[in-house]
Amino acid sequence: MKDTGRVEAFSDGVFAIAITLLVLDLKVPTQPPLLAGLLAQWPVYAAYLISFLFILIMWVNHHWMFQHIVRVDSTFMLFNGLLLLGITVVPFPTNVVAQYILTPEQNVAAAVYNGWFFVIGVFFNLLWQYASRGGRLLSKSDHEAGLAQIITARYRWGGPGYFAAFVLSFIWAPASLALNFLLAIFFALPREMSYPWRRAAKS
Amino acid sequence: MKDTGRVEAFSDGVFAIAITLLVLDLKVPTQPPLLAGLLAQWPVYAAYLISFLFILIMWVNHHWMFQHIVRVDSTFMLFNGLLLLGITVVPFPTNVVAQYILTPEQNVAAAVYNGWFFVIGVFFNLLWQYASRGGRLLSKSDHEAGLAQIITARYRWGGPGYFAAFVLSFIWAPASLALNFLLAIFFALPREMSYPWRRAAKS
Amino acid sequence: MKDTGRVEAFSDGVFAIAITLLVLDLKVPTQPPLLAGLLAQWPVYAAYLISFLFILIMWVNHHWMFQHIVRVDSTFMLFNGLLLLGITVVPFPTNVVAQYILTPEQNVAAAVYNGWFFVIGVFFNLLWQYASRGGRLLSKSDHEAGLAQIITARYRWGGPGYFAAFVLSFIWAPASLALNFLLAIFFALPREMSYPWRRAAKS
Amino acid sequence: MKDTGRVEAFSDGVFAIAITLLVLDLKVPTQPPLLAGLLAQWPVYAAYLISFLFILIMWVNHHWMFQHIVRVDSTFMLFNGLLLLGITVVPFPTNVVAQYILTPEQNVAAAVYNGWFFVIGVFFNLLWQYASRGGRLLSKSDHEAGLAQIITARYRWGGPGYFAAFVLSFIWAPASLALNFLLAIFFALPREMSYPWRRAAKS
Repeated sequence: MKDTGRVEAFSDGVFAIAITLLVLDLKVPTQPPLLAGLLAQWPVYAAYLISFLFILIMWVNHHWMFQHIVRVDSTFMLFNGLLLLGITVVPFPTNVVAQYILTPEQNVAAAVYNGWFFVIGVFFNLLWQYASRGGRLLSKSDHEAGLAQIITARYRWGGPGYFAAFVLSFIWAPASLALNFLLAIFFALPREMSYPWRRAAKS
Repeated sequence: MKDTGRVEAFSDGVFAIAITLLVLDLKVPTQPPLLAGLLAQWPVYAAYLISFLFILIMWVNHHWMFQHIVRVDSTFMLFNGLLLLGITVVPFPTNVVAQYILTPEQNVAAAVYNGWFFVIGVFFNLLWQYASRGGRLLSKSDHEAGLAQIITARYRWGGPGYFAAFVLSFIWAPASLALNFLLAIFFALPREMSYPWRRAAKS
Repeated sequence: MKDTGRVEAFSDGVFAIAITLLVLDLKVPTQPPLLAGLLAQWPVYAAYLISFLFILIMWVNHHWMFQHIVRVDSTFMLFNGLLLLGITVVPFPTNVVAQYILTPEQNVAAAVYNGWFFVIGVFFNLLWQYASRGGRLLSKSDHEAGLAQIITARYRWGGPGYFAAFVLSFIWAPASLALNFLLAIFFALPREMSYPWRRAAKS
Repeated sequence: MKDTGRVEAFSDGVFAIAITLLVLDLKVPTQPPLLAGLLAQWPVYAAYLISFLFILIMWVNHHWMFQHIVRVDSTFMLFNGLLLLGITVVPFPTNVVAQYILTPEQNVAAAVYNGWFFVIGVFFNLLWQYASRGGRLLSKSDHEAGLAQIITARYRWGGPGYFAAFVLSFIWAPASLALNFLLAIFFALPREMSYPWRRAAKS
């Protein structure tokens, strides 16, 4: 039943493409002056940066997760598919927020953006829960080491964090994006210190 | 003659890109109000969802198929190329149905969409038939276990199912899309129960 | 110095993306009636089909080539890069021919299309010549078996074939595209029979 | 802690997609005469060529770098992510320079283009510095052989080179692009001669 290799390869492909397609949201200004036109697009760049960071971090976490998963089954592949669905859509809300963040509709735009990230966070947790519950798809040693609980604890903050950003969207849109950015930074922080058990993980 | 690795890698790449390019069909509304504009696009989202699910399931099945194939030849690679041709085109009929499903031309749009899925199903069966006929490209143990017949039996429903959706397009377009969606769900169902022989398959 | 794996992986990625990006040339008709609009685009579909087949076959040949190459060096990677440059550009002349083949400018469009394929053929032969000349990057057994000459003989027809299509473009554009299509079919034909030595190749 | 495989695979995917997406900047002329329209776009082709070469060379160097790296950690993955961020954005400044190089705004356009390449060069050096400082992520034998210093010396020219191109943009835009092109050629030159130690590197 073990065959994580191709699932990882396919997922890597989807992550890599989604993160690269974000660039299609960057449009060259059609009217001079060029410099002013480029600078006026700063919300587009900010949205690009946050989305890039978000997908990158989701990939890094997906990567860590698979270091502990030693087999896959069909249900797992469906949950993984849900996560990939979430990731592939990211360029769309990114574009929404980039185009509307400086308009009176900024609250709706930020809510769409943060709300979608929350949905992806839920998908990610579903995937991890399915894989780790009772050590279902983990290696025996990882399961016995209580690894699942430690990782679960860490991921726990994703859901409420993005939900808070979603709620904040309706009150103060720029702050909700800043919170979203901070969440990405938090999840991006090196975890060498917090993952002492990793040395014992499957190579 | 054995060299399935790179064929799988190339196919994975094509599946991953096609499934991610679907997002380019999602356009940001250009006129306020934003929320109304986003909600009015629901057919686009529905088409996105069905196409995403369809490509994902085709990938999962392609993946299972390769678990039993132990060598490739040039003819197989051509049939595989035909299947990939079908998959890469999917964003186009998806866009057609998304733009026309709420217009008087919905029957033509649904027929194009369901008809293309039918064609892909035919390509998929051609590929599997070529690989499994007489155990041509299977491992000896899989062949002797009668595996080919079991899988063939399962895939048998794809052709008639999508053909029925195609015919239904001309009568009642929304129902034909619903049938298409149900077919995807059916093929997505975990097959742990129906695939007891998988434990004996090549690892 | 041996490290063909990542070069193959990168090349596979480029081939897979280029072949999938072709779909972006397929545009949904904006005015009813839909069916007539779709049918009127047949040159777009024809160009799509030829280009898809061409890239697929280039990939298959690239794949066979790497079955005999056991090491890479920087010069080889540059030649490989040239080939990839040729492949990534394909969606552009495809679009040119699709939009202009039914206009009075069909000769220029066909010449651009066939001419570019000729250039790619030259790049492909440069790559193969560099790798095989004196058995430079081949395994010793392949070299001694005279494999290089056999393959070189086969590829020999690519250059003159596409050049003929290029010249024909100025005289009779539709025929030049038909010739291009026939060349793709020729190179796509299974070579089980003509490659008896393959069984002895590196696995 | 060793797991360079998937980082390489993901990076390869991003490089491959970014290099292929460049083709979307090539637009088919909408008005006859076709030939004149195609020729008038020469700045687009020139920008395409330089950017393609640049990404290709960054990939080749990334590839060499990983031949000496035997483990990754989270910090390294973040620096690698920064580099990938730089690479994925390349189609955007390419488009800027293509559209504005023949206008009075050519200096701003060239500065954006060369400036972005300079930023990528900085990211690349950060990544290499982090990996090689004290032999952190290198194999012991590579570290002891003083490999890091040799490579560092070679990469040293990237930063000042692209910075010079950036400064030159404001004085003489076409020359700055020519310098950029020459830098790519310089880094593309085969390094068989200058890398005698490579034979001893990890296979």
